Amino acid sequence: MTPPSSYTYLGPEGTFTEAALLQVPGAGGARRVPALTVGSALDAVRAGSVDAAMVPIENSVEGGVSATLDAIAVGAPLRILREELVPITFVLAGRPGAGLGDVRRIATHGHAWAQCRTWVDTNISDAEYFPASSTAAAAHGLAEGEEGYDAAICSPLVAERLGLAVLARDIGDVTDAVTRFVLVGRPEDLPPRTGADKTTLVIPLPEDHPGALMQILDQFAARGVNLSRIESRPTGQFLGDYFFSVDADGHVEDARVADALKGLHRISPGLRFLGSYARADRRSPAVERHTSDDAFAAADGWLGDILGGR
Amino acid sequence: MTPPSSYTYLGPEGTFTEAALLQVPGAGGARRVPALTVGSALDAVRAGSVDAAMVPIENSVEGGVSATLDAIAVGAPLRILREELVPITFVLAGRPGAGLGDVRRIATHGHAWAQCRTWVDTNISDAEYFPASSTAAAAHGLAEGEEGYDAAICSPLVAERLGLAVLARDIGDVTDAVTRFVLVGRPEDLPPRTGADKTTLVIPLPEDHPGALMQILDQFAARGVNLSRIESRPTGQFLGDYFFSVDADGHVEDARVADALKGLHRISPGLRFLGSYARADRRSPAVERHTSDDAFAAADGWLGDILGGR
Amino acid sequence: MTPPSSYTYLGPEGTFTEAALLQVPGAGGARRVPALTVGSALDAVRAGSVDAAMVPIENSVEGGVSATLDAIAVGAPLRILREELVPITFVLAGRPGAGLGDVRRIATHGHAWAQCRTWVDTNISDAEYFPASSTAAAAHGLAEGEEGYDAAICSPLVAERLGLAVLARDIGDVTDAVTRFVLVGRPEDLPPRTGADKTTLVIPLPEDHPGALMQILDQFAARGVNLSRIESRPTGQFLGDYFFSVDADGHVEDARVADALKGLHRISPGLRFLGSYARADRRSPAVERHTSDDAFAAADGWLGDILGGR
Amino acid sequence: MTPPSSYTYLGPEGTFTEAALLQVPGAGGARRVPALTVGSALDAVRAGSVDAAMVPIENSVEGGVSATLDAIAVGAPLRILREELVPITFVLAGRPGAGLGDVRRIATHGHAWAQCRTWVDTNISDAEYFPASSTAAAAHGLAEGEEGYDAAICSPLVAERLGLAVLARDIGDVTDAVTRFVLVGRPEDLPPRTGADKTTLVIPLPEDHPGALMQILDQFAARGVNLSRIESRPTGQFLGDYFFSVDADGHVEDARVADALKGLHRISPGLRFLGSYARADRRSPAVERHTSDDAFAAADGWLGDILGGR
Repeated sequence: MTPPSSYTYLGPEGTFTEAALLQVPGAGGARRVPALTVGSALDAVRAGSVDAAMVPIENSVEGGVSATLDAIAVGAPLRILREELVPITFVLAGRPGAGLGDVRRIATHGHAWAQCRTWVDTNISDAEYFPASSTAAAAHGLAEGEEGYDAAICSPLVAERLGLAVLARDIGDVTDAVTRFVLVGRPEDLPPRTGADKTTLVIPLPEDHPGALMQILDQFAARGVNLSRIESRPTGQFLGDYFFSVDADGHVEDARVADALKGLHRISPGLRFLGSYARADRRSPAVERHTSDDAFAAADGWLGDILGGR
Repeated sequence: MTPPSSYTYLGPEGTFTEAALLQVPGAGGARRVPALTVGSALDAVRAGSVDAAMVPIENSVEGGVSATLDAIAVGAPLRILREELVPITFVLAGRPGAGLGDVRRIATHGHAWAQCRTWVDTNISDAEYFPASSTAAAAHGLAEGEEGYDAAICSPLVAERLGLAVLARDIGDVTDAVTRFVLVGRPEDLPPRTGADKTTLVIPLPEDHPGALMQILDQFAARGVNLSRIESRPTGQFLGDYFFSVDADGHVEDARVADALKGLHRISPGLRFLGSYARADRRSPAVERHTSDDAFAAADGWLGDILGGR
Repeated sequence: MTPPSSYTYLGPEGTFTEAALLQVPGAGGARRVPALTVGSALDAVRAGSVDAAMVPIENSVEGGVSATLDAIAVGAPLRILREELVPITFVLAGRPGAGLGDVRRIATHGHAWAQCRTWVDTNISDAEYFPASSTAAAAHGLAEGEEGYDAAICSPLVAERLGLAVLARDIGDVTDAVTRFVLVGRPEDLPPRTGADKTTLVIPLPEDHPGALMQILDQFAARGVNLSRIESRPTGQFLGDYFFSVDADGHVEDARVADALKGLHRISPGLRFLGSYARADRRSPAVERHTSDDAFAAADGWLGDILGGR
Repeated sequence: MTPPSSYTYLGPEGTFTEAALLQVPGAGGARRVPALTVGSALDAVRAGSVDAAMVPIENSVEGGVSATLDAIAVGAPLRILREELVPITFVLAGRPGAGLGDVRRIATHGHAWAQCRTWVDTNISDAEYFPASSTAAAAHGLAEGEEGYDAAICSPLVAERLGLAVLARDIGDVTDAVTRFVLVGRPEDLPPRTGADKTTLVIPLPEDHPGALMQILDQFAARGVNLSRIESRPTGQFLGDYFFSVDADGHVEDARVADALKGLHRISPGLRFLGSYARADRRSPAVERHTSDDAFAAADGWLGDILGGR
């Protein structure tokens, strides 16, 4: 897999998503094109106009896991290449020269507003909320002289980029909050196995099968593969039809994961493989001896002897 | 359970959430108080200032399932009393006397904007997006003379209430879209069993237990109880700790559901019961003979004979 | 449960089965009636002419586990009251005054002969085998002057009782061999829980159910109940129909065992409970917290609160 | 696999085991050597002095399933090549010229005696039992002038062979009784797949693994492989250690069976494969689409594409 040389990301400039992208080795010096939506970022990868796209995937003030994974799973195949965890810290930014006493109306995204309400109520309880489509958009508006508000809640990155005055730091309720982002490329880019990997799948529930969830999960359990995330999602087409979105510990090049995937494919041939990639937390799963690559190789050899009459 | 006589709901007036509340028999003539957030609506129920709260729970343009269920699960106990499905249809509303040709800037919530983009691009491609905190807020702003925009994408209900001009109907991409809402009351309100019920639970993953998900799901499977929704959620406190949010078919007064809940409680004593209530789609689950109330009663009698030396 | 005061056992006098009975506290001074077959011993208990019967159950030179359990399971209900392990040691017995050099023909049961062949081949290789219906019958024949043979392989007990000359001791191949016997009474005799108990069941496979074995075993696994023995048996009536004979760790008065038994009864109402009784080896099972009696009581209380609207 | 040209079987001549062997196509005209014990029959195959051995395996009046399977599983590898079902019918045989009224003492194996007691009690209630080591041995003794008895209960085959008088036919309690026998060869003889096959395995329980039985059975269930027999057996060496003897539906050349065997080998590397062979009853298992050979091939192809970056 060649390292990507051009990227897109959910913009505008200065979002937490761009911060995630800048954590990728080499991305700081590469071409970076902001995209308006997750969908258009992914389409740019599919069309080949960029090599990879950074998009938010979980708990984000800028998006949710489901919409992003749905967008990856539908259409021409894509692959998740890596995940990044970004600490979420908010600053209150004003125009250069402004002070905390000047703040009357604060623009930001609704989720960010919710997370900073305690600080606002305590420190500038008269300030009103002005909804913006993203924290970065609020900051850009402020820098460009938008008149409806005089402060923005945004990331430290965008405040610094735009030369805004930082009136207060770390104003969110939750300290140590992190958000997960994924870098998405094309199918020919399968990241190498690191020993601390994650595999993301979308698994349709086989049609006429009531106990099918247990059957699906058993494919993982029977090979000692743990799941770190599971979510049932309605297919949207028919009432009562579901698919499952899961993250499994391990890489498709691990024998136990490959074997589980083959088992899943037999049960649910519409299965989508969204990628195997290094875990951001670098935690290796505990692999029991009987699900190690060695145990798989030994079993293959043993069965070969039987079939060969030995 | 006495029918509630006063309600709150996620406002402002005219949201799809109020539309959901108006589907509840008797709610049209009862006191209805809009709330600013899901959290404040639930707090009003806990405090006793209203009897019940209608809040959005799934796929909503006004909120997501996770945040709402988290808010129900934390703090003083609440109970889900019923669910309502509301068809989601969007109208383009303008000021009285306006026509489609006058529309330059359209206010609405980001999700609603995403769902109506195709129609906008086809019919009024020059129009710009103006972010609002909700579709109803956009409509109210328009009615109150807010100057930043000249049209709103909102529900038919709010457009009619406020006397706005409906410039176009059914402008969303997805026809037949429905959103799920739940009515939330206090623990003493356990809805009666109807035979077509749903039980919502929040189940922490027991601490030091790697294969614990299968163990949890097996409590349902062993009693023939199907799940219609499952979602793993990080607890937010420790990396690697999870809980599960599930909807199970059946009512806690069904013997098989009661037995599964007791099994879950033994494994995960921090389990939260969020309610048993009638399914909006009125579909009864297929109950196998061996998980019927009769089979449970027969087994109890048989064991009693053994313990009694008969 | 009143201690039995009269017993029967698989005879004749001096069998390993009588040795097992003599291990029961109080049985040495009680009335002991030998029976010709396992079936007639059990019938005597059913008819009330004795209180309990000692019969061989496993790996025995005098019978097999299956036939005995089948005999207990069919007909009027009986209960296993306790199990006894008896060390199996063989002696070569001759008529008073005889020496090893006089032995030409040796009578014994076929199984005992098989287990002593190595010794015979090494020490008196010319001796021939004379089949007998039991080791004790061979010894009795010798004492009574039966002419077909001049030595018997039998238990030390019967040789001593009949005043035979012991020509050699411990002549079996397997040192430390033990055989299991069970004492069988009537249903009103449920032995008290000791904390190191075993429960024996006969479970018919539900008729039209292909994956039914897993479903049956899951009733134990879901309650943390281990099995120490499992055996599938054809019902004998229809090809393809099976039942299972199992020993489970624990006593029917343990909440986890009672719950498993109720689960089994729902699936397979023809289930037979053959008894809960102290393990001969006195080993207590490791009980996980979530399957303890306390966990069951806590879960019952929790569910009661929900149903009571608390 | 070349058809065997020489056979051994559990003798003496005229046993039900020889009757089973005569059901094998071509065996009637081949060399047939009786063996004294199951063990010596199997040793003759291992040593190469014969090509295959017919031995009793289930419910037999001449042996039990456990002892035979244990003998196959220990020592140099052997393979079960086919199974035969033989109807078990007993005749009462006397010396030429004798009538029913002459019968005083009847020789036979203990199991046969038990099965014919009802007939004896009804028709010649004065007759005594004389234990013999096999039904065939009783018949041979009669033909050779053995003096201890004047009739034998034996198979019709041996009575006819030895020219004995058949005094009564079908004297067993159970009509339609059948007994199962297996033909055993060497590892290079793997019978071809017929579509209605059976695979016999011996699976040690992995040492430090309490829930290991479910884990073992799940390897079959996860691949849709049914079991037609399961039996736990103590290893004999350590208290608390077990192995399992099972018959699974299907042939090792069926992809689902091969995959299950590999899964078992990973868990329990001491697994013994005793053979895949045609079922005597010719019943084909119902194979679900997702466990068909086609589904396995499709899954292999799909995974190959992922690993190849397609």
